[in-house]
Amino acid sequence: MKLTHIEHIGIAVKDLDSSIRFYEDVLGLKCYAIEEVVDQRVKTAFFMVGQVKIELLESTDPEGPIGKFVEKRGEGVHHIAYAVEGLEETLPELEAKGIQLIDKKPRKGAEGLNIAFLHPKSTGGVLTELCENPNK
Amino acid sequence: MKLTHIEHIGIAVKDLDSSIRFYEDVLGLKCYAIEEVVDQRVKTAFFMVGQVKIELLESTDPEGPIGKFVEKRGEGVHHIAYAVEGLEETLPELEAKGIQLIDKKPRKGAEGLNIAFLHPKSTGGVLTELCENPNK
Repeated sequence: MKLTHIEHIGIAVKDLDSSIRFYEDVLGLKCYAIEEVVDQRVKTAFFMVGQVKIELLESTDPEGPIGKFVEKRGEGVHHIAYAVEGLEETLPELEAKGIQLIDKKPRKGAEGLNIAFLHPKSTGGVLTELCENPNK
Repeated sequence: MKLTHIEHIGIAVKDLDSSIRFYEDVLGLKCYAIEEVVDQRVKTAFFMVGQVKIELLESTDPEGPIGKFVEKRGEGVHHIAYAVEGLEETLPELEAKGIQLIDKKPRKGAEGLNIAFLHPKSTGGVLTELCENPNK
């Protein structure tokens, strides 16, 4: 597997608007996109910091994955997403190394990327997303 | 405040050696430094992914900050560190905006950086570190 860079850091928030204000007014970053990802039941806001995106995630459903995360652990870092090359071939290789896959095949994520999640039980407690830009 | 990029992501682990093996053998990254930071009571291991470092943190003392974090929350992302310009002047500006500072003045961190932490209570649940390279 080749990781090229960190694509984004996903951060669970309770209220997207007030969190956007924090990232803009306090950290001085600029929100460049807001997008709803219906099948993940989240509204997302994106900021660029150097090479890496910050993806804020507000749940649109208390029973969705982010809703349950915030209920259990509070706001905070939800996942780290690495940009990889060769995602589809990578997944069976990882499984053969004993990594528990949440997605056995790539699926579509925010911003049109092909993505797959690895279970935090087999990645040292860090929910890990692998992303590939299909247009590269 | 000017954030230039994400300097590193700090990840709390129980066992540095087995975590290094995961990052090397599964993710294909290369550990380029191991360093003990005595006053933080941690041993750290560093990996470069594009522009960003992954900093694994193993506690050397169950009563230290990482030891207590792992005891309470398990392994996982501990903090996000942004590279900034003008750290010393930035801290009073942040305090004036209502941000709770853990360090009112910069102090020395790993790799010789000047660092200061912001309390997760005022940063949306994300323990946030600001870093400045004094040699730039």
